[in-house]
Amino acid sequence: QGILERLDAGEIVIGDGGFVFALEKRGYVKAGPWTPEATVEHPEAVRQLHREFLRAGANVLQTFTFYASEDKLENRGNYVAEKISCQKVNEAACDIAREVANEGDALVAGGVSQTPSYLSCKDKTEVKAAFRQQLDVFMKKNVDFLIAEYFEHVEEAVWAVEVLKESGKPVAATMCIGPEGDMHGVSPGQCAVQLVKAGASIVGVNCHFDPETSLETVRLMKEGLQAAKLKAHLMCQPLAFHTPDCGKQGFIDLPEFPFGLEPRIVTRWDIQKYARKAYDLGIRFIGGCCGFEPYHIRAIAEELAPERGFLPEASEKHGSWGDNLSMHTKPWVRARARKEYWENLKPASGRPYCPSMSKPDGWGVTKGAKELMQQKEATTEQQLKELFQKKKF
Amino acid sequence: QGILERLDAGEIVIGDGGFVFALEKRGYVKAGPWTPEATVEHPEAVRQLHREFLRAGANVLQTFTFYASEDKLENRGNYVAEKISCQKVNEAACDIAREVANEGDALVAGGVSQTPSYLSCKDKTEVKAAFRQQLDVFMKKNVDFLIAEYFEHVEEAVWAVEVLKESGKPVAATMCIGPEGDMHGVSPGQCAVQLVKAGASIVGVNCHFDPETSLETVRLMKEGLQAAKLKAHLMCQPLAFHTPDCGKQGFIDLPEFPFGLEPRIVTRWDIQKYARKAYDLGIRFIGGCCGFEPYHIRAIAEELAPERGFLPEASEKHGSWGDNLSMHTKPWVRARARKEYWENLKPASGRPYCPSMSKPDGWGVTKGAKELMQQKEATTEQQLKELFQKKKF
Amino acid sequence: QGILERLDAGEIVIGDGGFVFALEKRGYVKAGPWTPEATVEHPEAVRQLHREFLRAGANVLQTFTFYASEDKLENRGNYVAEKISCQKVNEAACDIAREVANEGDALVAGGVSQTPSYLSCKDKTEVKAAFRQQLDVFMKKNVDFLIAEYFEHVEEAVWAVEVLKESGKPVAATMCIGPEGDMHGVSPGQCAVQLVKAGASIVGVNCHFDPETSLETVRLMKEGLQAAKLKAHLMCQPLAFHTPDCGKQGFIDLPEFPFGLEPRIVTRWDIQKYARKAYDLGIRFIGGCCGFEPYHIRAIAEELAPERGFLPEASEKHGSWGDNLSMHTKPWVRARARKEYWENLKPASGRPYCPSMSKPDGWGVTKGAKELMQQKEATTEQQLKELFQKKKF
Amino acid sequence: QGILERLDAGEIVIGDGGFVFALEKRGYVKAGPWTPEATVEHPEAVRQLHREFLRAGANVLQTFTFYASEDKLENRGNYVAEKISCQKVNEAACDIAREVANEGDALVAGGVSQTPSYLSCKDKTEVKAAFRQQLDVFMKKNVDFLIAEYFEHVEEAVWAVEVLKESGKPVAATMCIGPEGDMHGVSPGQCAVQLVKAGASIVGVNCHFDPETSLETVRLMKEGLQAAKLKAHLMCQPLAFHTPDCGKQGFIDLPEFPFGLEPRIVTRWDIQKYARKAYDLGIRFIGGCCGFEPYHIRAIAEELAPERGFLPEASEKHGSWGDNLSMHTKPWVRARARKEYWENLKPASGRPYCPSMSKPDGWGVTKGAKELMQQKEATTEQQLKELFQKKKF
Repeated sequence: QGILERLDAGEIVIGDGGFVFALEKRGYVKAGPWTPEATVEHPEAVRQLHREFLRAGANVLQTFTFYASEDKLENRGNYVAEKISCQKVNEAACDIAREVANEGDALVAGGVSQTPSYLSCKDKTEVKAAFRQQLDVFMKKNVDFLIAEYFEHVEEAVWAVEVLKESGKPVAATMCIGPEGDMHGVSPGQCAVQLVKAGASIVGVNCHFDPETSLETVRLMKEGLQAAKLKAHLMCQPLAFHTPDCGKQGFIDLPEFPFGLEPRIVTRWDIQKYARKAYDLGIRFIGGCCGFEPYHIRAIAEELAPERGFLPEASEKHGSWGDNLSMHTKPWVRARARKEYWENLKPASGRPYCPSMSKPDGWGVTKGAKELMQQKEATTEQQLKELFQKKKF
Repeated sequence: QGILERLDAGEIVIGDGGFVFALEKRGYVKAGPWTPEATVEHPEAVRQLHREFLRAGANVLQTFTFYASEDKLENRGNYVAEKISCQKVNEAACDIAREVANEGDALVAGGVSQTPSYLSCKDKTEVKAAFRQQLDVFMKKNVDFLIAEYFEHVEEAVWAVEVLKESGKPVAATMCIGPEGDMHGVSPGQCAVQLVKAGASIVGVNCHFDPETSLETVRLMKEGLQAAKLKAHLMCQPLAFHTPDCGKQGFIDLPEFPFGLEPRIVTRWDIQKYARKAYDLGIRFIGGCCGFEPYHIRAIAEELAPERGFLPEASEKHGSWGDNLSMHTKPWVRARARKEYWENLKPASGRPYCPSMSKPDGWGVTKGAKELMQQKEATTEQQLKELFQKKKF
Repeated sequence: QGILERLDAGEIVIGDGGFVFALEKRGYVKAGPWTPEATVEHPEAVRQLHREFLRAGANVLQTFTFYASEDKLENRGNYVAEKISCQKVNEAACDIAREVANEGDALVAGGVSQTPSYLSCKDKTEVKAAFRQQLDVFMKKNVDFLIAEYFEHVEEAVWAVEVLKESGKPVAATMCIGPEGDMHGVSPGQCAVQLVKAGASIVGVNCHFDPETSLETVRLMKEGLQAAKLKAHLMCQPLAFHTPDCGKQGFIDLPEFPFGLEPRIVTRWDIQKYARKAYDLGIRFIGGCCGFEPYHIRAIAEELAPERGFLPEASEKHGSWGDNLSMHTKPWVRARARKEYWENLKPASGRPYCPSMSKPDGWGVTKGAKELMQQKEATTEQQLKELFQKKKF
Repeated sequence: QGILERLDAGEIVIGDGGFVFALEKRGYVKAGPWTPEATVEHPEAVRQLHREFLRAGANVLQTFTFYASEDKLENRGNYVAEKISCQKVNEAACDIAREVANEGDALVAGGVSQTPSYLSCKDKTEVKAAFRQQLDVFMKKNVDFLIAEYFEHVEEAVWAVEVLKESGKPVAATMCIGPEGDMHGVSPGQCAVQLVKAGASIVGVNCHFDPETSLETVRLMKEGLQAAKLKAHLMCQPLAFHTPDCGKQGFIDLPEFPFGLEPRIVTRWDIQKYARKAYDLGIRFIGGCCGFEPYHIRAIAEELAPERGFLPEASEKHGSWGDNLSMHTKPWVRARARKEYWENLKPASGRPYCPSMSKPDGWGVTKGAKELMQQKEATTEQQLKELFQKKKF
């Protein structure tokens, strides 16, 4: 059954987790460029991660094609040991995802994400060409549906949806925005409306903010759609990092990004709360983005097992709410084998010299830059970059 | 070259990271039992993790035989989906480790760890038989050397070393103790002396405490050996969690163990400090235990690259001290591309409702139990367990 | 010169600090009742505190008549060692304030605050009678102007202003609300408009929230007045506690209220930032409430010394920005004798087992109560109290 | 009854709190010099603070003669508005303390503290002359007993005790040291032994460390005395700040000293725990130093009321363990009217951008200085100061 059949029937669809962060820690992706040449260089590593997500309960395996548009690969190409063509990266990604999906009953989703072409103000035709180049591979490899994800500007996301819709396949679209909306100031509600009007059947957010903040953004999207009397399925794939201190642009501006985020990693219990809240909000496509490891995805599947009627395969290695601790030799560890314990635990950081929250860099601290954005002088990152160079912020 | 040839020549030997925690997150090991039946059930997952550690710079691949003695597997057997023989688990572990070791120039080390037989006061013959059963496999599979690791009581560790020495292969021995010594009150210095006298060529600690605390314990071991005019190589494989608030029994007594440890995970920069300190202390076998992911091992290899003269393979996907951020579009992210930034960052937890430190459960809070231990009434966990049942602590 | 002459001339008027908290710590006020019978029982203690605020730079000494309406004193009377009449308490308060005011050039302000009569739904006539009884004393003792302060409901505050206006003296009115508005849901802007229309020449907030939050509330009041084309002077007398985690009802709902607030106490440097921000926002009557000790008031006077042209008397015992540390014997203490140091210090709590923020009790956690309030079933505290009793929240 | 009669009879003697910190906040003492010229300049402020401590339960009023030796007043004299003679300051201090002591049944203790003469290596005769000059005033004013307090070097403390013993009055001696001992490396146990041998009847610690650390230091002193078979009463007057992160020299080296210590202020409940622990350890002279406000002293008296059989006067304004909250209108505030609540509260700081602990400056961070001290090259602060100048640390 296709993605829309499942969602239309009221099923809960579980997404997968974050590839670039997980594979960075495993040694196959470089932080900074974040490009997916590992599909060609180290397919076994990508395959294994897909398999772990599948085992954890994911119903959708996204092709590892994040930042795999030709302009992006080129732009970051100096980081790649050996030039690998955009075509090859995308094809390998499709092949690996399909291979693992066939080990279970998962769907394969081809994904496109924001492009440097847009940020450097290339025109609509050029930006769309970048998406179309990836789409050609997805069609050739016959993915099950398509996702336009990680867009900071709804304008570019709409262009992506328009291209993907040419395929005739179902299209999902998620933006990496928070409750304050996109980088041009378009509210989440308005973003959702524009995406649905452009043809997306599923809308929501991914990346950049923690689960709680992301759910609030999707709630605003839902409100926007209701006000506009539009229907769409809702989707949420947040960070697995606590980021209550984020500014408008999300976790990239936090001083800990990307190499000091460890103390912010969410627990499996945090994810269970997220999954429950997402479900209660009416979201039925529930997954994760950067920071989500297989056990986080399993936590979604376990939390929603009562609704779904089954546990994922990987739960053979996990007791619900820690019940596998009930045979520990130490009585005080046995005492942890219960839901109330883990639900209420306030986990310590072990870092008494560190604070709880950080002030974001960038908009948060660069007063001049902030004012510029408010004055709408700089509406794209590119323009801002130039202003930075000129004005020496 | 064998392990002793390398160490005798002054080489730095990098160990691997923690299997049970990493594979628990990937969905292949059950927290609680922590047994390694995945070697038979899901060899591809174990193989991939070995490969990632190798790629990250590990010179030693330990067979995934933690808690793989027959008595332990039996004891925890009710958790295993389908009974798998002790022999099979150990053989598969050796085969996988060797296969991956051959992809590089790593050594394979067969490992034994503490047994339930000892804790339930079985006699020396019986405990030694458990080790010998695993050793038989290691000899058949011809591992390069042997490690007796994760012992809380030096008495049992000595028995393990005595058995392993029968093989004629080099033996390393590490205890999971902190500066206060073993569970019977034997100091780290005395533990080291006993282990070397029993035949260990390499001694140190693994697991249970954070890098800083573990280095202090090894320092005390070194002092003990010097005082006794004994020579041995030093080894350290600590947790990748910050645990300044641990009591004598380490992280197991922390309220966050094992499902809420995320905010304590160390960064790669913490590991670089650890590697440097370990080196300065004269430790030449430097690795990790629970919590160590491949990128943590790579951080050891990168910190000590000047001394070793080369970087590990996985550094192709990592800039030294974040230098891969230097081309980021945002100027404030580019500003993070330098050593001083990451060295001095005090990473926030994103958890303002959580504390920095926890009071350990168990000895820390159970006054009666603590007094019992002090009175030496209960010297083994088993005895204590009985006392708990009788006296209802 | 009277209060309005000073403010109309653009002068900065510095208020005094918090009496009930300061005198509770000194042993003269009981937490819980918070009534001011100390004016009769221990006048020397009240006099000394007034003197310290005067010396610190206060231009206004408020009579210590907080919670000194007859209904409140009666209501809490069981706590008072020996019954002391409302008249006596208020008269003594006026005498002491005037005596100390004459030691400098300060003004005396007679103050009234919210009444139990209002909360238990007595009618307008009865509530006004309570204010009028206090006003009679203020007129007899000829205070310089009047303040209606610490009102949670704008309706009651308006009644208070109406009574005080009968005197012909200038009237200031401050509410103990945050940006979410009063307990009936009236926004700060609307509250300000109603108070000015009722006759208040000065409006603002006092108590319940930290300086930052209180400034935001006054900002909203200012916007409300501008939108209504009304003119009034602005006033701010916040807590000297950090309360970013407050709910709508302020610090009373924080679990630390009132006996565990110590770690939240603001530093003198926090107050200097507050004074500057208040000034920049156009506020010219700047003081403090609970938690403000004399040195906090001095910090306002020191921050605004450039604008005012003079330092307060107590600055003879204080170096600007710590410059009195410049002769310390330890070089690293000398290094603290500069503005940048104290401005940027992130002071540690010395409490690694404590969190940074708390969840407020009450509306924050009592879901049933919250829903009741939202349904407008319970609009007064009294009604809520009854509902609590009936429904056993 | 004199101090020794009381202690010999097994009575608990409650000390007073900290004058320099309390009066700094009230505007009468300058941080940095910390000298007590307020006894002459503002006697009413000093009198009021004495009265508050008396009312809170203090049985001993110490003359406010801290840092009132002639050499110190001279040394810091440039800070004093108008030169006031050492004689006058000490005499006024005695008069005020006696006046207030007579309002109750308190004893007056004349106090001397460490001198700049000692730190600048003046000889024994000269240092003793400074103490003798103050002692002359104490004898003329007939104080009840004498305290030598706030000594970092036991050698100087012994000299002080020797001088004070010339009077024939009982002598107490407290050092401002932690468990690591005095600045020359003399252990707490040895310090206690030397002080008792010099003639002190009461020994202990004051200032520089938090209650918990100070109790540990007194415990070590007790052990030292027991080992030497010496008898003396024990005394403890710690900081009212949490300082678990202090180095050897105490809170002065913490980055927050002296103007950012607010988040470290202990609660009344912390003090009750301290009082109980002190009592259990056998300490019978229990008071406080810097940071102790009257309500902290009251907390000692309330905790030990069962043993003493009475409450202090100021308890008329305080309910035991918050029981005065039992009539609050809000049910969740009423729920705080119990011992368990306050005993277990982990109070939040309201400062999510601040850490829990700090690294001390000085020895902690100045590696060169630390090494110097270890090499015993610089054994006094003066020598170190010179070395700093020469070597430009």
